[in-house]
Amino acid sequence: MVSESSDKVTRVIWKAGETAEGADWVARETAVAMVYNGISHVVMMATPEDLEDFALGFSLSEGILQSAKQLLDTEIIETDKGIELALTITAEPFAQLKQKRRNLVGRTGCGLCGAESLEQAIAEPAMVATELAISHRAIQKASSALAAEQKLQQQTGAVHGAAYCNQQGDLILVREDVGRHNALDKLLGALAKKEQAKDKEPGFVLVTSRASYEMVAKATSANIPLLAAVSAPTSLAIELAEKSGLTLVGFTRTGRHVVYANGQRIH
Amino acid sequence: MVSESSDKVTRVIWKAGETAEGADWVARETAVAMVYNGISHVVMMATPEDLEDFALGFSLSEGILQSAKQLLDTEIIETDKGIELALTITAEPFAQLKQKRRNLVGRTGCGLCGAESLEQAIAEPAMVATELAISHRAIQKASSALAAEQKLQQQTGAVHGAAYCNQQGDLILVREDVGRHNALDKLLGALAKKEQAKDKEPGFVLVTSRASYEMVAKATSANIPLLAAVSAPTSLAIELAEKSGLTLVGFTRTGRHVVYANGQRIH
Repeated sequence: MVSESSDKVTRVIWKAGETAEGADWVARETAVAMVYNGISHVVMMATPEDLEDFALGFSLSEGILQSAKQLLDTEIIETDKGIELALTITAEPFAQLKQKRRNLVGRTGCGLCGAESLEQAIAEPAMVATELAISHRAIQKASSALAAEQKLQQQTGAVHGAAYCNQQGDLILVREDVGRHNALDKLLGALAKKEQAKDKEPGFVLVTSRASYEMVAKATSANIPLLAAVSAPTSLAIELAEKSGLTLVGFTRTGRHVVYANGQRIH
Repeated sequence: MVSESSDKVTRVIWKAGETAEGADWVARETAVAMVYNGISHVVMMATPEDLEDFALGFSLSEGILQSAKQLLDTEIIETDKGIELALTITAEPFAQLKQKRRNLVGRTGCGLCGAESLEQAIAEPAMVATELAISHRAIQKASSALAAEQKLQQQTGAVHGAAYCNQQGDLILVREDVGRHNALDKLLGALAKKEQAKDKEPGFVLVTSRASYEMVAKATSANIPLLAAVSAPTSLAIELAEKSGLTLVGFTRTGRHVVYANGQRIH
């Protein structure tokens, strides 16, 4: 039951007027800095597992890298304040990153970690380019299978999961994190490695969280045809899914789910 | 049932092999830019209600402002890309903000929107300075009452809530947002206004989400003595709560809750 992604703590349960002290497992949350060729770019709070997937997936879904080939090396450096992911990237994306940073001078707004203007925040979406059809039964099959694969969630009750599922609804990859964006980034990173190794089956993504704008944007950036979320979508997530050709499913539960955009892909 | 914070959409429900089309309400998510004296600082995805509370609460909990008095005016400007919150702040915090931005030049890392280095990310916590004692019964009372006050959640199932509760467990203020940090920032903003009007009772905060590091950090910045979360805490949240003197409660459900830090405040 012990993993690097959880910590044992002592806590007091209050139940119907009685208190009892005992031990429990909580999800570990760590500050993780993304450092590109020596330049520290951003810090996120994340669960310290699958960090190489996180580094690659974040770099791709945030547009810092265009392909997995551009990431040459990932070094995981533990410090007393958190973890530094020291990424070595190729010259072209690094030049672009430096150019963005030079543009900071004299600008109103930073525009690097997150967007500084509304124009930047709501960018034109990537179009999903695949004709893949997926059945309602495959979504249900994946949904029923996911809980058993959420190892850290079972232990701590504190983390989100993201799964890649093939056309039949079999779970191919599962990643977990205290942050839902991080869980999806880890999954997309692992998926990019599979693609690079020519080992990626067509399929869809299932997440245990809600479907917000950023979740849909990350999925479309990776050309994912269908995103199914256990909880609700937001209005902007539906709008982006419609524009980008992504099929958006919400409230995915046993025996039931709701299709919010591009239902023509589901049969 | 119609509010500015939700949109009516057409969706298809799949249930046990049958599909049915119908209408549903989803939470509105909008890009919201925080602009200080004309300088666009950061964009967040948020629910467009209680935006004045959001502006003040975010500015305080992120340390841009030190007190509510420093915010002179908040103008809400709707654009086709989202909403601009044009804040007019006093000279002193604005000079500090500009100084931070000037420091960007020649630095590795941006350090404004989020932190760029691990040292910045994990700052020394504010110490909670209050001797307030809270009963298990008050936590339970607040927990039982919250669902009925989550109007947008009832309609959409997509948003988090944050409530300020007095020592007896009565709900004094409730705020909602698609983002849990935003819901808490809105609450802290509303609370700061109450404090300014000398209308703030002693009390605690209840949130419908998990308790992560940032949630505890925001609560301590507002001198909140106790944070109760419906879901799990993370390891770093517990650590920060212990250091800062905040009482941290998790898994707050009917008839049951779990105390993770500084339980001496609860009786």
